[in-house]
This record gives sequence, C-alpha cells and structure tokens, in this order.
Amino acid sequence: MAHRTSFEVATRGRGTHDITRLVQDAIARAAVDIGHALVFVHHTSASVILCENADPSVRHDLEAFAARLVRDGDPLFTHDAEGDDDMPAHIRTILTASSITLPVAGGRADLGTWQGVYLWEHRTAPHRRRVSVTVLA
Amino acid sequence: MAHRTSFEVATRGRGTHDITRLVQDAIARAAVDIGHALVFVHHTSASVILCENADPSVRHDLEAFAARLVRDGDPLFTHDAEGDDDMPAHIRTILTASSITLPVAGGRADLGTWQGVYLWEHRTAPHRRRVSVTVLA
Amino acid sequence: MAHRTSFEVATRGRGTHDITRLVQDAIARAAVDIGHALVFVHHTSASVILCENADPSVRHDLEAFAARLVRDGDPLFTHDAEGDDDMPAHIRTILTASSITLPVAGGRADLGTWQGVYLWEHRTAPHRRRVSVTVLA
Repeated sequence: MAHRTSFEVATRGRGTHDITRLVQDAIARAAVDIGHALVFVHHTSASVILCENADPSVRHDLEAFAARLVRDGDPLFTHDAEGDDDMPAHIRTILTASSITLPVAGGRADLGTWQGVYLWEHRTAPHRRRVSVTVLA
Repeated sequence: MAHRTSFEVATRGRGTHDITRLVQDAIARAAVDIGHALVFVHHTSASVILCENADPSVRHDLEAFAARLVRDGDPLFTHDAEGDDDMPAHIRTILTASSITLPVAGGRADLGTWQGVYLWEHRTAPHRRRVSVTVLA
Repeated sequence: MAHRTSFEVATRGRGTHDITRLVQDAIARAAVDIGHALVFVHHTSASVILCENADPSVRHDLEAFAARLVRDGDPLFTHDAEGDDDMPAHIRTILTASSITLPVAGGRADLGTWQGVYLWEHRTAPHRRRVSVTVLA
C-alpha cells in the first residue's frame, strides 16, 4: 500500500539539516513491514543526502569541500540572476542527489548505525524547502 | 501494480535532452495514484538528472563545469579505447546518476515547479540511449 | 510482494568489488516479474555504483580520479579521527551514492550490456560492508 506525506524545512541558509526523525516518523505512519521510502526534495538548489551522523565536523568539512569544488562567483558561470551562489547551488544539487530511497524493514528505515538523513541547503539565503516521503510496500 | 515502458533517445552528442514529457506520459499510462517511478538509462556513458528547467544557461554552465572537472584527454586516464571522451563519460555518469526515482501523486510525477528530467549524453558523438520507466504503486 | 535479503562484502581496502551476481541472485529469489530492486549499503564510507563491466582500466581510472579529486590528508579537512582517508571516504560516498535502484523485468535486474553493480570501498583498510537488496513488485 502506498503512503505519502510531506513536510517543509525552513533552512537557515547554506548547510545541512538533520531530517532523520521527520523521515522515520513519516515511515512509521505508513505502518508497513518491508518496503521502499523515497525521500524527495522538490527544488533544484537543495539535496537529500545520507551522511555520518555522529561528528559535526564531517558536515563542516563537507561544506568546505563543496565550496572549494564549486566556487561561488566562478567566472565560468553565466547563470547568476539570483547571485553568485545561484549556479553553484544547481551544480551541488546535481553532484549529490535530489532524493534518496531508503529500505524499510520492521516499519522503519533500516539505516546503518552512522547514517543520518540530511537536507542540504545550497543557497546562502534561508529558504523553505518541501520534502515528501512516499512509502511503498 | 507494476507498469513498465521504455523509449529511445537519439542524442546529438554531448549535452542534455529534456525528457520530462516522455517520462510524464509513461507515468500517465501506468494510471496509478501514489507510487514511485524509476527512470533508468541502460548505459554507462549517459545520466538521468533533475535540473532547473527554465533557463538554458543552467545546462550550459553545467556542461562547462563538467568539462573542466573531468577533462577529455586527461593524461591520468588509461582507458581511451573509444577516444578522449571515453573515460570522462564514465566518470561523469558515476558522479551524477544512471537513474532517478520520482514520487508519483495524482497519476503524475510530483516535480517541483523548476524541476525537469534530463537525459545527459556524455559522449561527444551522437548515440541512441535506451531509457525505461518502471512505475510501482 | 516485498522481498528482502542482505549479504556482507569483505573488502580488501579501497577499490571496487563486483556484486552483480549477488544482486541478481537476490532478485531472482524474489521471484517477481516487474519491479524495483533497491541495493543499499548501510555505511557512510562505501558506495554502490553502476560502472562499465568489461575493462578493468575503467575502475582503475575511476579510482585515480577520485583520489585526485578528494585528496587523502588534505589540510582542508578537520575530521581525521580515523586517519587521512576518513573524511575523503565520506565525501566520495556522498558524491557517488549509498544505493542504487534497479528496474526488474522478467525476474532479473534489467541492466544494460555494459552495466555492472559494484560496491566501492573508500577506506584504505579492509572492512566488512553490509548490503541489502529489497525488491518490490
């Protein structure tokens, strides 16, 4: 049986937001034993990623790496209508992912011990991001 | 109920091809309310991505960024049997994705306003690329 | 009907491991005609990728590219509790993927001729990696 829910995340600008609990709650409401949960962000400047969940320095270094790999204001970019971070935000999204599919077992996402689910905002300004969770069994 | 269809895209060489309508048509034929649609390209030198769909400069800059990140003819690469773009095409595919899973709601892919589905050809020569859409509900 | 299985891969340190047969066997046991198979690695320092399966030089060059893109011991990284390859392993995982969803048709993964499924170990030391395959129809 398919079950679908969605929520919004108010971001504080560029950076990661732990949405593991929101995702697990959405999956729990689906009340399925074994299945797939699709966590999808409906925007082109924010990602959904799985990342180490214990040490905040991992997300700090991830952000630093992304900022160096895809530089804001790089003269290569012509698409800058919304600012220096506009095109980098699109590229960061495509290099990571707009969604992640999680295995459901025993009614919850079967994540590894160190796996957390994060919304990654790639714009420097705060945004409201719509995330949906669609569970199939 | 599972529903599966496939189509071919004749690419004109390196670059993005908007397949949003082909994907939405395939999903519509599945006639499901809520589900998952897996859009999969059956090749190792072409990707399926979600990208901003309004301003062509986004895809232009994306292409320029990929060409700089993974250089054709880079002396690092030993795998060049099919030319300077052979190994870069494999790497570009792995850094992006061979598939994307879309949430289906109300019988269609529930994309964000600015999200389009693109086949990204990474070889410089034209190719025929097989894409399948498998819908579960 | 949902079907779920899992297996462990004993890696020999950094590099790719062909798991295509393990995945196909898991899908065969599900005995479904059309569906989705989610291949998921339950760790934050190893990926599941689709890669060219014929010429080992592709995986060799892929490894060389990743090592240059995300350098072990890069002074940018503060997270190095487990060594110089700790943070690079997390970044490599996020730039590729923790999972891949495969279309199932006729009871098996409908891969392209040159597509193989690989577990990619990103740590330099050997590890045991848990991989699950969850098939829905």
